[in-house]
Amino acid sequence: MSRYTLFFNPMSRALIAKWAFAEVGVSPELAIVEWDAKPAALLAANPMGKLPTIIHHASEGDRVVTEASAICHYLAEMEASDLLPHEEEKADYFRWFFFAAGPIETAISNKAMGWEPKDAKQEGTVGFGSFTRVMDTLDNWFKVHDFVCGDRFTMADVYVGSQVDWGLNFGTMEARDSFKSYQQRIQTREAYRDSMGTIEG
Amino acid sequence: MSRYTLFFNPMSRALIAKWAFAEVGVSPELAIVEWDAKPAALLAANPMGKLPTIIHHASEGDRVVTEASAICHYLAEMEASDLLPHEEEKADYFRWFFFAAGPIETAISNKAMGWEPKDAKQEGTVGFGSFTRVMDTLDNWFKVHDFVCGDRFTMADVYVGSQVDWGLNFGTMEARDSFKSYQQRIQTREAYRDSMGTIEG
Repeated sequence: MSRYTLFFNPMSRALIAKWAFAEVGVSPELAIVEWDAKPAALLAANPMGKLPTIIHHASEGDRVVTEASAICHYLAEMEASDLLPHEEEKADYFRWFFFAAGPIETAISNKAMGWEPKDAKQEGTVGFGSFTRVMDTLDNWFKVHDFVCGDRFTMADVYVGSQVDWGLNFGTMEARDSFKSYQQRIQTREAYRDSMGTIEG
Repeated sequence: MSRYTLFFNPMSRALIAKWAFAEVGVSPELAIVEWDAKPAALLAANPMGKLPTIIHHASEGDRVVTEASAICHYLAEMEASDLLPHEEEKADYFRWFFFAAGPIETAISNKAMGWEPKDAKQEGTVGFGSFTRVMDTLDNWFKVHDFVCGDRFTMADVYVGSQVDWGLNFGTMEARDSFKSYQQRIQTREAYRDSMGTIEG
């Protein structure tokens, strides 16, 4: 039995976790989830019923991790210290990891719903401020950096890169030059091609 | 000069960073920010213009960290390893840290804006699913755990605890028993009382 179970559906954010598993060289057991019949084991682990959710079958007991962002970082912590940030990279690594999990994710999904702040007061209420400012801020970074931590690929790029990759593929992000260049760089990862390119699970 | 600059306004999420600094026993230099006149140094560090933003004046150069969540974790990384998770606590620590930065933050601020998904399809689009399910999931945890990592306070409790504390104080979260008990526990922290209780900066 694999040391990990990944609740999975190929048409979901669980693909991000699949890529992360490929980066750390671990094959999880896939528990395929149909949207209209969520398994009791998933709901027990994660009452949100969301994918991805993983169970790490650690020696002292099972551990649940939810949120694609947390799963990526956790897998690096457990399995691949070379994908963790060096001391001097930690500021960039955690800044952009949380920026992608909060403002980017929310700006994109709110825009898809037609939910956009209308003035400065509303921009102060929502954590992401404005969609355009989120794009500008990310653009500023990737205009002058190849990866989240500068010149080296880390696990943060799996999560931030997934946001950019999907955003460009689905047209939910603006196709700015810096985003397209970053997308090309992350798509050269062997683990990306082995996981994001296939939908069989 | 302090090793850190904190861009600060007492009526903002920067209070979360102030509490985190107090937990790690470091006094940052406060750069007070007025909403209608954001300093150039803030905008240079963080084009979002958001608070909190910190600059860590490290020996090899300045490092910028944005996002209240990232700042909390980064300060523990740099200054207080006892507030970081032990190996067996990492699943819970990162799961709930990212859950608070993503689904909780978005569910609360979207609800304040009157933005709520209307059916299962919309719930699938937004990362937080539904406000009630976010509350239920958090409630399930704190019904049976004192803190994010079980029985021990960690830096994750500064961020998750701030969400619960503010949510209850501003009425943007439901006043469930488990939330109120958790709030009482975190309010006993000396660093909480030294920072969140004062607004002079």
